[in-house]
Amino acid sequence: MSKGLGIPKGTRDFSPKEMVRRNYIFDTIKRVFQTYGYMPIETPSMENMETLTGKYGDEGDRLIFKVLNSGDFLAKADQTALAEKDSLKVTKSISEKALRYDLTVPFARYVVQHQNDITFPFKRYQIQPVWRADRPQRGRYREFYQCDADVVGSDALIHEVELIQIFDKVLTQLNIPSFTIKLNNRKVLSGIAEVIGQPEQLINITVAIDKLDKIGKEKVLEELTERGVRADAIEKLSPLFDLSGTNEHKLSILKSFLADSEVGMKGMEELEYVLNYIHLVGLESAELELDVTLARGLNYYTGAIFEVKANNVSIGSICGGGRYDDLTGIFGLKDVSGVGISFGADRIYDVLEELNLFPEIENQTTQILFLNFGEKEEQFVFKIASQLRNKGVNVEVYPDAAKLKKQMKYADNKNIPTTVIVGSEELANNTLSVKNMKTGEQEKVSVEQYIARF
Amino acid sequence: MSKGLGIPKGTRDFSPKEMVRRNYIFDTIKRVFQTYGYMPIETPSMENMETLTGKYGDEGDRLIFKVLNSGDFLAKADQTALAEKDSLKVTKSISEKALRYDLTVPFARYVVQHQNDITFPFKRYQIQPVWRADRPQRGRYREFYQCDADVVGSDALIHEVELIQIFDKVLTQLNIPSFTIKLNNRKVLSGIAEVIGQPEQLINITVAIDKLDKIGKEKVLEELTERGVRADAIEKLSPLFDLSGTNEHKLSILKSFLADSEVGMKGMEELEYVLNYIHLVGLESAELELDVTLARGLNYYTGAIFEVKANNVSIGSICGGGRYDDLTGIFGLKDVSGVGISFGADRIYDVLEELNLFPEIENQTTQILFLNFGEKEEQFVFKIASQLRNKGVNVEVYPDAAKLKKQMKYADNKNIPTTVIVGSEELANNTLSVKNMKTGEQEKVSVEQYIARF
Repeated sequence: MSKGLGIPKGTRDFSPKEMVRRNYIFDTIKRVFQTYGYMPIETPSMENMETLTGKYGDEGDRLIFKVLNSGDFLAKADQTALAEKDSLKVTKSISEKALRYDLTVPFARYVVQHQNDITFPFKRYQIQPVWRADRPQRGRYREFYQCDADVVGSDALIHEVELIQIFDKVLTQLNIPSFTIKLNNRKVLSGIAEVIGQPEQLINITVAIDKLDKIGKEKVLEELTERGVRADAIEKLSPLFDLSGTNEHKLSILKSFLADSEVGMKGMEELEYVLNYIHLVGLESAELELDVTLARGLNYYTGAIFEVKANNVSIGSICGGGRYDDLTGIFGLKDVSGVGISFGADRIYDVLEELNLFPEIENQTTQILFLNFGEKEEQFVFKIASQLRNKGVNVEVYPDAAKLKKQMKYADNKNIPTTVIVGSEELANNTLSVKNMKTGEQEKVSVEQYIARF
Repeated sequence: MSKGLGIPKGTRDFSPKEMVRRNYIFDTIKRVFQTYGYMPIETPSMENMETLTGKYGDEGDRLIFKVLNSGDFLAKADQTALAEKDSLKVTKSISEKALRYDLTVPFARYVVQHQNDITFPFKRYQIQPVWRADRPQRGRYREFYQCDADVVGSDALIHEVELIQIFDKVLTQLNIPSFTIKLNNRKVLSGIAEVIGQPEQLINITVAIDKLDKIGKEKVLEELTERGVRADAIEKLSPLFDLSGTNEHKLSILKSFLADSEVGMKGMEELEYVLNYIHLVGLESAELELDVTLARGLNYYTGAIFEVKANNVSIGSICGGGRYDDLTGIFGLKDVSGVGISFGADRIYDVLEELNLFPEIENQTTQILFLNFGEKEEQFVFKIASQLRNKGVNVEVYPDAAKLKKQMKYADNKNIPTTVIVGSEELANNTLSVKNMKTGEQEKVSVEQYIARF
């Protein structure tokens, strides 16, 4: 192979087969988003550097891909920094643009920039690639699609309910046999920290109890001590670890636990609203589980917190989300509450592959291959192929009169379910020999009859 | 507005309205590609620098967006070049990756890299953004989508025929009222240069006659002289400028003109094959015009050359394409002939907008808004909304009991065609008041009847 072949590490080519499967996932998600009034937007791949820096922490800043200024960039570079070989400082002077790191910050920028043209509440979805200069590893890429739906400009809880329905609908339509939507609320976590007398330890407490699933109760208690949570507070916290049973049962225990915390009771009220509405209509196949140990993205979320896990597979979380009260504040627009979710398309792909759940997707691939036996036959089948295409059927004519074996191999490799043979006999009788490539069955039909089938 | 707002020049945000229209164009193109057996692939946004450099000429190299290496890039930089402030040289040592400049080179790289997994002839389409550090101006962007279909690994002319059909089908389905597909062949151009006795002047001749449309015959003759074409050669060329009438008429004149040129007659044969096949099935609405002055991308094309123009609009060429005999040679895989076309999605968008041809696209936007008059009513309509969504209808419930005027304004702004009112009366009678937002008509229906309509 010649020099330069290959692609940057952490990036991927997608073959036709993979594309059809990825589109199946994206199309399912889009269709469901749309039934809830979410509408697509797209933002540029490159944002101004100032838009992105400082939004993801120092580690995030480091992982942002920077685009080099065009032209004689060194002439305008920070000469002192250059002399000092300070790469970080030089970057600022030779790179004005960067590739987006997620869809959330560009969305916030979009909302603030276009606030006068937007009708609020603004329900948008966005499915585009993002880039991170992370160390690539299994399931982690430097370029990957995010798939987000958010509504901003409304603090109504009906959105939380609908987003849970969206999780349920999408994953049901994708035939994932068993999955759990976990639900929590930041206000409940705040209430817990308050009730045990250590509101200032909220982050340490949630970081520790978030690990309950993985490391068990004993280790979590140890970690709480290490993190400086007082013994009497841990003692008070203890009953929450054994919270089990139905959501109703958990709610009743939490209610008495949180009775003295205003913020905690507000959280309870929000949880109850959501659970009540879901109860009104039911879910198709999701299990909805109240989980007070769920804390993902805590710094960010202010109300509901969601996470979806596919059960019985090695891949864990496949979706997440939550409510945030100040998305656009970073760009100077205050008091815009929002709630959003994100589908992990790559992980969903892996789940569907692991469980062998991808359907045959025939409407996007070739349905019929007309074999080619020479000039006269080619002209004959070309006309028929054109008529079928006019009816929306996906048809190919093998482009030259190659050996039959080669043509059949082409059909096999492309997984084309039907081949049509026209030799001199068919030509004379205006018929087609139609072969079902799966069963091997072959039939003779008149041209008119065959076309009329579609 | 806060600092950092706005997006890099030459890039765009796409609003929901624009996205729906862009998707309408892309979906139409995809559907037609698929009926001809073209399948989607995607390649990474970033390619290794060596994959891209040297493929687009010096000017192209300059316009490629380079991605800065992560980490302490200055430590590994070319120190001599750095000391000399040679930006061009330094770039090579601090930037290993670049944003793709078109879809053609990444496609060639894909074919060579995956040659053992690909079934040839390989028909692929690819719709992805590309980036160019060009000076932005009206209709020219630094990030824009390309929309390409190519078949490689076959020199059969039936592909040319099918690609012309694809132009015709796509633009017909987009309701473009009048457009012309121009067809030429590189071999005919070579033949002409041969016949007039100046084969070495092929490029100069075609560059000059390509301008016939814009500057007229006299100026083209002047330019030919300036470019060093001999007077006797120009004299011989002269009758071709007046080539008019039907394609058949042009063919017959060209045939006698090119009679002594082998390559010219090969070109004629190819043109005749294509025109014959198109004649067999006809075109839906395109005019197909043989145009010997068409020369776009001549350095590149080796057979057929296509260009599509929308008539009666200021925007010129909206599609192009042609056959190339050595796409993958640059990556070490010889003798892979291919032919491909490209749709200019941004230009097609502008044509549809200029001629007011975008349809109402209702299946992607909200069809019904349930107004919200309080808690009881909300729960009532939420259940109905859920049932309608299960039937695939796009439905929103206004998220809180805001003033009626505000809710109606939301429906107006989002162009939602139907609103449903449920107040205490409707609640008591299990009915809905359904309002057609265009006519203003309002009707009362039972819930069951209304749901049954969908």
